Amino acid sequence: MFATLLHDKILEKNSRLCVGLDPRIEWIPTSLTDTARQEFGDTFDAAGAAIFLFNKQVIDRVAPLVPAVKPQIAFYEQYGIPGLIAFQKTVAYAKEQGLVVIIDAKRGDIDSTAAAYANTFGGSTQLFGSEQTAFPGIDCVTVNPFLGKDSLDPFVEMSHNYGSGLFILVKTSNPGSKDLQDSSLGERTVTQEVADWVAAYASEKLDDRGYSNIGAVVGATFPEEARMLRERMPHSIFLVPGLGSQGGGYEGLGNFFDQEGLGAVINSSRGITFSQRGEEGSDWLDIIEHNTREAVANINQAIGK
Amino acid sequence: MFATLLHDKILEKNSRLCVGLDPRIEWIPTSLTDTARQEFGDTFDAAGAAIFLFNKQVIDRVAPLVPAVKPQIAFYEQYGIPGLIAFQKTVAYAKEQGLVVIIDAKRGDIDSTAAAYANTFGGSTQLFGSEQTAFPGIDCVTVNPFLGKDSLDPFVEMSHNYGSGLFILVKTSNPGSKDLQDSSLGERTVTQEVADWVAAYASEKLDDRGYSNIGAVVGATFPEEARMLRERMPHSIFLVPGLGSQGGGYEGLGNFFDQEGLGAVINSSRGITFSQRGEEGSDWLDIIEHNTREAVANINQAIGK
Repeated sequence: MFATLLHDKILEKNSRLCVGLDPRIEWIPTSLTDTARQEFGDTFDAAGAAIFLFNKQVIDRVAPLVPAVKPQIAFYEQYGIPGLIAFQKTVAYAKEQGLVVIIDAKRGDIDSTAAAYANTFGGSTQLFGSEQTAFPGIDCVTVNPFLGKDSLDPFVEMSHNYGSGLFILVKTSNPGSKDLQDSSLGERTVTQEVADWVAAYASEKLDDRGYSNIGAVVGATFPEEARMLRERMPHSIFLVPGLGSQGGGYEGLGNFFDQEGLGAVINSSRGITFSQRGEEGSDWLDIIEHNTREAVANINQAIGK
Repeated sequence: MFATLLHDKILEKNSRLCVGLDPRIEWIPTSLTDTARQEFGDTFDAAGAAIFLFNKQVIDRVAPLVPAVKPQIAFYEQYGIPGLIAFQKTVAYAKEQGLVVIIDAKRGDIDSTAAAYANTFGGSTQLFGSEQTAFPGIDCVTVNPFLGKDSLDPFVEMSHNYGSGLFILVKTSNPGSKDLQDSSLGERTVTQEVADWVAAYASEKLDDRGYSNIGAVVGATFPEEARMLRERMPHSIFLVPGLGSQGGGYEGLGNFFDQEGLGAVINSSRGITFSQRGEEGSDWLDIIEHNTREAVANINQAIGK
């Protein structure tokens, strides 16, 4: 199951970093975009080709160093069908290289529609006489709880049936997360309410380490809240966005993990892959490897591992 | 701009029905799926081909009768790249037939990611030397406010720049909408709070009828709340899901409209396109036309138009 697999990879590599794959063609090295533009011109096909060329090399470099990658589907979708083909190829390639693949899609809808989303992101789709997987290689997806518990149930059912994972948004990393998530519902906040749903779902099925496939998104920008949420959701892995570009630091990261240094994975996207934006030269992969090793070490140091 | 276009179409056709295009291959007439399966076998390609064959004929039949269609992207995405190609072709074809195209995607994310989603659903994408549209023909998209105001700003900016529309989730049609949306934040509910954001965004830019491109999703299943929300968001068009299959009736629909019978569009998906699920025979289009005419008339009767 997802939780076991992710923890196995974390322990195997002694690494708690997830590399976000959020391509922006204007920041991809020109050596790659030139190749794509020569073949396809100024088109979405060229964008898709450049994205996969880039992601493949990034994956090759980071696969020995991290347990997971997280493609954010918005950055592929904006390049149309060629962008989504690059997404599909990225997911499959990352999986082949032994990485856990977390899709950041933040889907959420009424029950029948949520079930269709669940088919796509961790489940499978009924065709005429067979069941097939729309984007093979997906281990896990992020989900938005705004529509209520009945909108989450189909995702939880999918998780139980397929062993795939969910990260339900509990406290997002952006400043605006205060607007609704911090709002008080009498004795508790919206974030605490959703955390209690996650804890209830999570308790339904645990692995040998005591963890569930039903996890939570908790922003790196709110380490004090993380301490409270860690207690409130003892069986859930946290996906922690917001390090670096969004302002989250290393010092509070201990609050997101359990005593054994498990129970969380820290995401960094731009800070790893685009610290040199669109610069020329052949050393861009060395820079990405350096950024990765540094972030892995800083996280481990912050939690004493 | 979007609001003007939608109202023009409503008045031209004296019709306030939006036909939801939520394909399920198991309910598409076998005459169409057989054609697709003969060419492509039991594959996603066959599913995509059957979906577009179906949608094209539905669009031809309903285009004279309704102002808008609403593809729900989950039902395309689950059929992988071929499903998304069918989505792309459906959007373009509906637009060519003079329909307003509302995409139900319920996207929402932190600012930079929200901007990428906005590029896809109503904006355009910067390529190497040009700006291009990932899915041409999209007029409007549904958006989820859970991440807060800063997650909505990029969509509102896109709307201002491109004249496209937004429907922000205010009160969804499902029973679970009570869980968070009805929660009390002291003096008002989450729904009322989000309604006030929508009203503030909407007041920034109005058309000659006094309507904005920033609309709201308000479920047909909650007509009493609609009365309060209609007053709270006087400049916003309501997208109203939940008629029929989800339990919403015609009797309360007057609460969603303004005095002139504008300001709302009522969606029906399964009730229009799949009342005969997968039945054989050549009369399925007649049934869809009958369902459409009946729903249009019932809505007009309910609001005295």
